[in-house]
Amino acid sequence: MAAKLQAAKSLLNWDSQVNLPKGGAWARSEQMAALTEVMIDLIGSQSSDQDLCEAEAKAATLAPDEQADLREMRNKWAHASAVPRELQIEKARLTQLLQLLWVRAKADNDFESFATPFTELLGVIREIAMSKADAFRMTPYDALVDEFDPGVSQAIIDPIFDDLASFLPSVIAEVRERQACWPTPTIIGPVPIERQVLLTHRLSQAMGLDAEHIRIDQAVHPTSMLHSPGDVRFTTRYDLANVRRGVMATMHEAGHSMYELNLPRKWAYRFVGLARGIAVHESQSLAVEKIVGCSRDFLSFLSRLMTETLGTDPGMTDFTNVLRNWRRLENGFIRVEADDLSYPLHVILRYRLERALLTGDLSVGDLPGAWNDLFHEMFGHTPPSVATGCLQDIHWALGLIGYFPSYAMGSVLAAQLFERAVADDHDILPKLGIGDFKPYFEWMKSRVHARASIVDFATLVTDATGDRLGTTAFKRHVERFFLEEADVT
Amino acid sequence: MAAKLQAAKSLLNWDSQVNLPKGGAWARSEQMAALTEVMIDLIGSQSSDQDLCEAEAKAATLAPDEQADLREMRNKWAHASAVPRELQIEKARLTQLLQLLWVRAKADNDFESFATPFTELLGVIREIAMSKADAFRMTPYDALVDEFDPGVSQAIIDPIFDDLASFLPSVIAEVRERQACWPTPTIIGPVPIERQVLLTHRLSQAMGLDAEHIRIDQAVHPTSMLHSPGDVRFTTRYDLANVRRGVMATMHEAGHSMYELNLPRKWAYRFVGLARGIAVHESQSLAVEKIVGCSRDFLSFLSRLMTETLGTDPGMTDFTNVLRNWRRLENGFIRVEADDLSYPLHVILRYRLERALLTGDLSVGDLPGAWNDLFHEMFGHTPPSVATGCLQDIHWALGLIGYFPSYAMGSVLAAQLFERAVADDHDILPKLGIGDFKPYFEWMKSRVHARASIVDFATLVTDATGDRLGTTAFKRHVERFFLEEADVT
Repeated sequence: MAAKLQAAKSLLNWDSQVNLPKGGAWARSEQMAALTEVMIDLIGSQSSDQDLCEAEAKAATLAPDEQADLREMRNKWAHASAVPRELQIEKARLTQLLQLLWVRAKADNDFESFATPFTELLGVIREIAMSKADAFRMTPYDALVDEFDPGVSQAIIDPIFDDLASFLPSVIAEVRERQACWPTPTIIGPVPIERQVLLTHRLSQAMGLDAEHIRIDQAVHPTSMLHSPGDVRFTTRYDLANVRRGVMATMHEAGHSMYELNLPRKWAYRFVGLARGIAVHESQSLAVEKIVGCSRDFLSFLSRLMTETLGTDPGMTDFTNVLRNWRRLENGFIRVEADDLSYPLHVILRYRLERALLTGDLSVGDLPGAWNDLFHEMFGHTPPSVATGCLQDIHWALGLIGYFPSYAMGSVLAAQLFERAVADDHDILPKLGIGDFKPYFEWMKSRVHARASIVDFATLVTDATGDRLGTTAFKRHVERFFLEEADVT
Repeated sequence: MAAKLQAAKSLLNWDSQVNLPKGGAWARSEQMAALTEVMIDLIGSQSSDQDLCEAEAKAATLAPDEQADLREMRNKWAHASAVPRELQIEKARLTQLLQLLWVRAKADNDFESFATPFTELLGVIREIAMSKADAFRMTPYDALVDEFDPGVSQAIIDPIFDDLASFLPSVIAEVRERQACWPTPTIIGPVPIERQVLLTHRLSQAMGLDAEHIRIDQAVHPTSMLHSPGDVRFTTRYDLANVRRGVMATMHEAGHSMYELNLPRKWAYRFVGLARGIAVHESQSLAVEKIVGCSRDFLSFLSRLMTETLGTDPGMTDFTNVLRNWRRLENGFIRVEADDLSYPLHVILRYRLERALLTGDLSVGDLPGAWNDLFHEMFGHTPPSVATGCLQDIHWALGLIGYFPSYAMGSVLAAQLFERAVADDHDILPKLGIGDFKPYFEWMKSRVHARASIVDFATLVTDATGDRLGTTAFKRHVERFFLEEADVT
């Protein structure tokens, strides 16, 4: 039942971004709040500790999907029951408000107006984290992470992030030096939006996005609608001046959508039938956007496709120029526009700051300064504004603390899955070269999508790749894309 | 809370008609069912008889809007609590199923496949009606009507319908005879859909449909999305061959939408803030479609607007041809395509049959024959199929028994309101002649829309028109449009 209401909420959210008349914003936020409240009550009341204990006592007699259902139900129940209802409602109320304040604060580059209510929200999140920490016997931060990625914790994150934080800056410096010798690539644009829409259409055909199940619309912030079996939608955006931005957004969201679409229908609306968590979801989008989407094979196909559809000067879409556009390191401040190498560093920065915010070691008032200092330390330059600094992401305004690590875990997992996929099936890369995504998605479907939540995160990773999650494959991928292949055009 | 979930459900329903990928139908119907179930529980539990009694005891001390809220709450609570939860769930389940079966049965012109599950649904509706009849001390049929139009009953409906049933056939015969002398009007079409969309756009500007609040999309069955304050949407459809159909659909739905849009925002999501009921809602759509929309003043504006936007042969859109297209009596079988004169008869036919179905005097198996006999008696010809006969409307499949009368009550009320409006404000008609709907909607807003549910049906009608609901204005309207003005072109 809760899963179906969650699906309804996803639709409301999608509609807010795609269709909602301006004047309907207040009414919609009231609807979302009502659904949230109903869901809080439902999850709290649907099963009791006693029911779960009884079921768990005879778990051995259950089928594997029922066992998995029970495990996930226990997790959801634990998260819901650990937190007093009023605290959950208060969080929902504050995040509703902060979402609006964040939009304005970011537009006005005004941290002040955001700081006080955000401090209040942080207090509520801290209380929630402590309640969960008590109930689960883990640290408050781990208790928050567990909601998004059950089974993932600082003990797993830290060695990976420490390794990346020491490995990446020197590689970035080296790649930058090499790319400095490149002639500046010509940006692909301006291209009329309808041509870019046509390109999206052709790309989605190549990826096998089935029109019977998938809608693509335009919105300011590209996102995917989750939780609605057989009705998969994502939004993308187009930049008149630069085709690459739309292609990257489309491929990112297509990765999420194929995961959702390939979840087994037989488990629809059951806990076992949900995607495995945020890190795995991000591995799917990042693999399509940043690994498949930046591979020489795919880019050679994309170069031909763009030449056919965009009607630009052919030199603009020739392979070398496309490759350089796609592989060139950015030097920006924005996470969602970051290249494959900087991306994990952007996440690690947030990870460090949000842990300090949660413990109270960092006060909200000091956040902009701390952000800029750490950014300078990691990237060597300083954001010119809070809008391009600590206010760039909506996540904290939504109360999402413990969520960011999943993005970089997703990067690392994407590389590990992809390495294994192309080792298992030698057809994957050559087929991408002719715009055929079938072998790629077949592998992902059998190893990841079709398994939904039948096993836990660690088992899914080991079953799929033969190894637990680590940085080795990611490093090899980075070296191949940005060092070995960099100068060969 | 229930009102907000109702708004969410309306959005899901709208989306099903406008955006839903084919493959998402099952998932959506599950979401709708889950929301329905949650709402049943909510309405049942939100207040108790005791709470209501306590509030009612001190009603005299309450503000008028609070008193109205209480009255409406009592009504909703009475309807919800009179019926066992299982019966409500069973009805929701059956109507979900029958909705799909109806689509197929109608397409295949196959009553057999529909009959058995419909008999089952009718059994459930009968039980519901009897439970309510017991609780409310009224007849089972009245108890059903009361859900859609509290305060309306057979005692009010019967004299009006009897009068119409005796008045209309002879007028129709007379009008038909006069119209037989007309040269056959040229149908306005074919016109490319994009031109018709442009016409809708210009029309909605004239009507003052504010783009900040109103969306218009295309769908197979035109409908309006209700219950979402400030977010008003309707769908329309276009017939390549005949522009008139799209204009009529657009104007009908625009009437509903202006009502929703003008409901007072200060009462949003409160019972007092809802539209007054189905009959009043239909009066608003029918007044715009069939009275305003067929008035000589508006049609002269429309004729000029079509000449400007459609790019057809000017003779096609000249005033006389437009007037004859809009005023010509149909001779069809379909209620939603019926002219102003036949429309109430279509409704009266359904009213008679559904009462007999409810009492059991008519069995489902005998329905197609009974429909055809009564149709022949009233209209002088016989539908060639069940698809154009008793399966043409979805209402019964949705369990809507007691709903149809509101349509004809709406026709009658539309005429009574309009007559009073043009008597009060002599600007209304001349302004319609230049495409300015402001005076018309201003009058409707102050007398109907802005009052929402602050008073009951009978009081709303008397306050607005100075008289209780009757057929006099409707008869005068019919005579003016179809007899007095008929030959003057």
